[in-house]
Amino acid sequence: MPGVGYKTAERYAYKIVETDMSAVDDFCKALKNVKANVKLCKTCGNFTDAQDRCNICTNRTQSGVICVVRDPRDAIAIEKSGAFGGTYHVLHGVISPLDKKGPDDINLKSLMIRVREEKTKEVIIATSPTVEGEATANYIASLLKPLGIKVTRLAQGLALGTNLEYADEVTLGAAINNRTTI
Amino acid sequence: MPGVGYKTAERYAYKIVETDMSAVDDFCKALKNVKANVKLCKTCGNFTDAQDRCNICTNRTQSGVICVVRDPRDAIAIEKSGAFGGTYHVLHGVISPLDKKGPDDINLKSLMIRVREEKTKEVIIATSPTVEGEATANYIASLLKPLGIKVTRLAQGLALGTNLEYADEVTLGAAINNRTTI
Repeated sequence: MPGVGYKTAERYAYKIVETDMSAVDDFCKALKNVKANVKLCKTCGNFTDAQDRCNICTNRTQSGVICVVRDPRDAIAIEKSGAFGGTYHVLHGVISPLDKKGPDDINLKSLMIRVREEKTKEVIIATSPTVEGEATANYIASLLKPLGIKVTRLAQGLALGTNLEYADEVTLGAAINNRTTI
Repeated sequence: MPGVGYKTAERYAYKIVETDMSAVDDFCKALKNVKANVKLCKTCGNFTDAQDRCNICTNRTQSGVICVVRDPRDAIAIEKSGAFGGTYHVLHGVISPLDKKGPDDINLKSLMIRVREEKTKEVIIATSPTVEGEATANYIASLLKPLGIKVTRLAQGLALGTNLEYADEVTLGAAINNRTTI
């Protein structure tokens, strides 16, 4: 399990031994239930239960904007921000030559089919502003731009509520270059 | 001294007792020297030694862009980013009604005189994206806009090299709203 080392695993094991058999049974059932029922949405690749298409894909068909993210948890983070009302497309990874991950290893082909079928107006590429995230964003942009689709990227700059003196130089440079008129 | 509590102060005191008298003398001279020679630039309010105007104000007269910052250390942070080639204006504080700091308590009047005299084209308000920083930015913008000066603000969004899942919701929302075309 992510973030669980030797000590924590030991504490978990003791807890299981101390727990009633019925509770352990219920826990196992819940685990199997998740594995059996949570699958990937056929449209966007996000997690969905029972249905073939996730709730977001079913309810927001008319937005014309697709937000491309790396994993389902990024989609959830953006949903929580409340600033986006379109549909998502989950890549399940980013292009990373060091990890031998190329464009064919991420959920990209279905995006190209989607933008044509859904007549998408704008694609927001919301991969992280890291080396791999930027490379993936640029690659996807190079595929979408010839189709006449507006391709945008999340703004880079200062986090809200932070103090200027704690911002690193590169971020501060980006914040100056991307400054907005008020 | 900022960040020095009881324990650290004790360690400093012991160190002084253990140090040679000549070294303590040199240290005192250096302290007095800083107090005697470092003063505020008559143009921008930043620190300067010896001259009445700081190096940046002397050398970058033709930029037409003024970057308004809270303290000298913010100006240094922006200088380090290398993304800005204009002059600065140091407010020495921000408007903060809770601390009983109003517009007259910060170095603002001289900015209004400067923009007229220097025929400034753009003012970048680089206060932090905090409540006080935003309030100060909006107040300054309300003074400068009627003069036909372009007023801009540092971009708000994701810090470079960070992972999307660690961004807070408000920052993520700002990053989506301020998204840039690629």
